[in-house]
Amino acid sequence: MKTIDICLSPELMHLYDVKDRTVVVVDILRATSCMVTAFAHGVHSITPFADLEQCRVMHEKGYITSGERNGEKVPGFDKGNSPFEYMNDEIKGQRLAFTTTNGTQAIEKAKGAREVIIGSFLNLSTVVKYLLLGENSVLVVCAGWKGRVNLEDTLFAGAVVEKLKDYLGPDCDAPLAARHLYTLAKDNLAAFLGESSHVKRLNRLNIYRDFEFCLKHNEYAVLPRLRNGVLVV
Amino acid sequence: MKTIDICLSPELMHLYDVKDRTVVVVDILRATSCMVTAFAHGVHSITPFADLEQCRVMHEKGYITSGERNGEKVPGFDKGNSPFEYMNDEIKGQRLAFTTTNGTQAIEKAKGAREVIIGSFLNLSTVVKYLLLGENSVLVVCAGWKGRVNLEDTLFAGAVVEKLKDYLGPDCDAPLAARHLYTLAKDNLAAFLGESSHVKRLNRLNIYRDFEFCLKHNEYAVLPRLRNGVLVV
Repeated sequence: MKTIDICLSPELMHLYDVKDRTVVVVDILRATSCMVTAFAHGVHSITPFADLEQCRVMHEKGYITSGERNGEKVPGFDKGNSPFEYMNDEIKGQRLAFTTTNGTQAIEKAKGAREVIIGSFLNLSTVVKYLLLGENSVLVVCAGWKGRVNLEDTLFAGAVVEKLKDYLGPDCDAPLAARHLYTLAKDNLAAFLGESSHVKRLNRLNIYRDFEFCLKHNEYAVLPRLRNGVLVV
Repeated sequence: MKTIDICLSPELMHLYDVKDRTVVVVDILRATSCMVTAFAHGVHSITPFADLEQCRVMHEKGYITSGERNGEKVPGFDKGNSPFEYMNDEIKGQRLAFTTTNGTQAIEKAKGAREVIIGSFLNLSTVVKYLLLGENSVLVVCAGWKGRVNLEDTLFAGAVVEKLKDYLGPDCDAPLAARHLYTLAKDNLAAFLGESSHVKRLNRLNIYRDFEFCLKHNEYAVLPRLRNGVLVV
């Protein structure tokens, strides 16, 4: 039987053997929510970078440079990390170079997997359907915050476990814990997350609108996948 | 204000600065439950070892050698890892050398802390009272299972957060998640844990009696503390 597990922090990735697994990378606030939004608005590809300077030089090669450090736009970059920056026609057909504090680091660590896809609440049902029809066991990798576990990514992982519960058994305790938390939170995710550290951080940055948008379920039906180090749909 | 945080796996210890914190090490099934039981029955001291062979040679120096690997007693050791082995008069005044798969590894990683104490459900209220009266912020370190997060240690950490909620604010999201889980589980911890990986492992080893005992709250009023690498009360 196929199984599902959750890696609650990229710092725990070395504990998981992913060469036969489909890895779902999630960074709800806001890297993977931005990526899904960008693909839904016609971006050609997104190249994720763990390193800031490697990302910056891609501008000279015709890429749109995107991302953040510590929640704020990188000086000199074309775009930041708000999904609302990825909703216009200007990005249609463009190539993006993307780097963030947590999300693109998690993608980097997932590169040894059988395949890597990008998850967010915005494309939740598309992700779930893909995993259901696929042949591989699953590992959801939560980007967290600088290595620490966070609530929003854990809740997304719990949502995936919940929706696949009749088909994929849990490997360990993390899927059980995350599923319990999602069940508890799902009727009002925003309120449940109101006390979380990252939401407080976002509120300080005046981006509550981003937070609300990133919790919307199934806005888009795209499935970004990593091919030779580049995300495409 | 004093704060509380939870390190959900020893593999995440490098993310936490503990030099000014009181660290509570917990390995409910079964290392720290055994240690608390042993002190409640008059043991003189417990020296924790991460390394099996270093522990074994302590027998020649008059120590009782105790512990397990992968849940089973180590061949040649005096005692295993069941709390029921630490309830007789034979251990009174004795020195124990203890090594386990997860618990003693977690103690090793906590050694840079301001102070290290040992927690379990068996001495929960003693731990909580000590933390409440102490001056330091707190980090609960869950031993987990070979680096992975487990439910039973997370629930204990959540219990500590819950009982101190009016006095110690959470540093990050892990305390919020653990507290939610404990609130959900507390009326029937055994049932809640029935699906967990470690409980299934223990059931295979026919030690369900240990499992039930380790979930009892406040059986003992002892507080093991690390002094120069040795646990004493």
